[in-house]
Amino acid sequence: MHTPDKIDIREVSPRDGFQSLAGFIPTDHKLHIIDLLVRAGVKEIEATSFVSPKAVPQLKDAAELMSRLPRQDIVRAALVANLRGAQDAVAAGVDQLVMVISASEAHNRANVRCSIAQSVKNLDAIFPVARENGVVVNGAIAVAFGCPYQGDVPEGDVSSLVQEFYERGASSVILADTTGMASPRRIDGMVRTFIHGFPGCRFTLHLHNNRGTAMANLLAGLLAGARSFDTALGGIGGCPNVPLAAGNLATEDVVFMLEDMGVETGIDLEKIIQAAVELEKVVGFTLPGQVMKSGPRLARVMAGLEPCYSSRRRAGR
Amino acid sequence: MHTPDKIDIREVSPRDGFQSLAGFIPTDHKLHIIDLLVRAGVKEIEATSFVSPKAVPQLKDAAELMSRLPRQDIVRAALVANLRGAQDAVAAGVDQLVMVISASEAHNRANVRCSIAQSVKNLDAIFPVARENGVVVNGAIAVAFGCPYQGDVPEGDVSSLVQEFYERGASSVILADTTGMASPRRIDGMVRTFIHGFPGCRFTLHLHNNRGTAMANLLAGLLAGARSFDTALGGIGGCPNVPLAAGNLATEDVVFMLEDMGVETGIDLEKIIQAAVELEKVVGFTLPGQVMKSGPRLARVMAGLEPCYSSRRRAGR
Repeated sequence: MHTPDKIDIREVSPRDGFQSLAGFIPTDHKLHIIDLLVRAGVKEIEATSFVSPKAVPQLKDAAELMSRLPRQDIVRAALVANLRGAQDAVAAGVDQLVMVISASEAHNRANVRCSIAQSVKNLDAIFPVARENGVVVNGAIAVAFGCPYQGDVPEGDVSSLVQEFYERGASSVILADTTGMASPRRIDGMVRTFIHGFPGCRFTLHLHNNRGTAMANLLAGLLAGARSFDTALGGIGGCPNVPLAAGNLATEDVVFMLEDMGVETGIDLEKIIQAAVELEKVVGFTLPGQVMKSGPRLARVMAGLEPCYSSRRRAGR
Repeated sequence: MHTPDKIDIREVSPRDGFQSLAGFIPTDHKLHIIDLLVRAGVKEIEATSFVSPKAVPQLKDAAELMSRLPRQDIVRAALVANLRGAQDAVAAGVDQLVMVISASEAHNRANVRCSIAQSVKNLDAIFPVARENGVVVNGAIAVAFGCPYQGDVPEGDVSSLVQEFYERGASSVILADTTGMASPRRIDGMVRTFIHGFPGCRFTLHLHNNRGTAMANLLAGLLAGARSFDTALGGIGGCPNVPLAAGNLATEDVVFMLEDMGVETGIDLEKIIQAAVELEKVVGFTLPGQVMKSGPRLARVMAGLEPCYSSRRRAGR
């Protein structure tokens, strides 16, 4: 099983997680979680979005949050959808702009309320703003593996968007399975094609778990050559109306699995579990992450605890 | 990505799922679910256990259930832990005995209250009983990838147990990750070693999701050559005291993923989703399966529905 020595984790819970909640989480609580993330070793954090506060009131504190982020050696990223957002984000001091465009026309209009052509045109203004301010642009392609409006998305449509980012100088592109429509073969095919087609570009997989395949998709991506993954503490994310149905991959679950496979993430498992437990207190409901419930691999042995399934003395396996 | 044309699904929800509940599910309800499983195309069902009704009251109706199972072209399996159980199961008309032994001494004692040596000795009596009655013995090795009491389990200890089953004529062995301690590299290594070492033996992976890795472990097993997987409708299983923490792989999630990869399971996705929805009604709580919440890959497109995450017009991916 051929795997790399290490990979990058992009932590997206402050953006993709807090955005998904019905209510607004106070800025102090957000910063508390981000502080725990940084202490656990997270190096790249998608901290917020610079979009209309009417559209996304959960992230209306974007500028304040950005100004109060820890100044350690971390990459402070923010999602934007147009030039106005990019300007605001740059003014607020971000290190990385995550510029999102959907691979389907229908989803781009629903998500950012303009055509794909208009979103691409925006890049011509956004890249110079970023460059002049020493800010990196990370391209993000939504519904890259299928769109809930359109259905299948031709790989060529995704490839065209990668090309738009790539030729303007982006060295990093996120391929997002926005609603969990990917499976390992789709991931494998696209990752191999793009790594070959866009030399030097880092491809990040952003995988939602709507259909239970996110971790298998991560493994497929890893084996195909992807070296960067978006994850969210506790698996937070998705839709507040569908409990536990559509979260991100849980950072601590990914750290557990990759470290157990000998792939370094740079993140301390015990500390990231504690951060997830703390996030659960902040949001007030059970998160879908599993390692935060079961503990590290040898947790029960170390604690001298009986596993609960045996306490009732039933035969099973 | 090298994958087989088809694989076997062993449905374990009637045994591993109902066993995990705090209360007893009436036999009629169990049979209703099994009927839906069979109609969806499931061909091999671990229907119950023949163990002490004091130890596992949830399955005290084993003999009655077995006598009332559908007579279609399916394999009716039952878990046993000793000769008495095997005799009872054979008398009740099972097609397949699943004889469980743990790869760690501590777990075997906790699970079936005898030493591994005693369990192995039992095989000398169980295999003849099975053979005389035309019943297949499927070996099942619990805690094959780690034990919550002992910690790491040497591969040689697992291999020794496989050998005990194999040399007595078992053509099928289940490797169980009882409490979710495996990761893809562990799966990959053991599956490749055993397929090479025990020619002609079918290895089934039984994967719990305590640490979020079960579907990735299934993919690793598939790529390493495993051609059979235990799954449970809705992902039912685990411990009633830890909600959603420790279920099996959800049958419908596995069917979705494998069929999308071009691997046949013989199971109809729409029908198995309906069976999972029905199981949720029977047990009265939310099951961890994801596809039963999100639907097939193109479900929202087909239904003309808006995805919930876009209805609030937020920018995201």
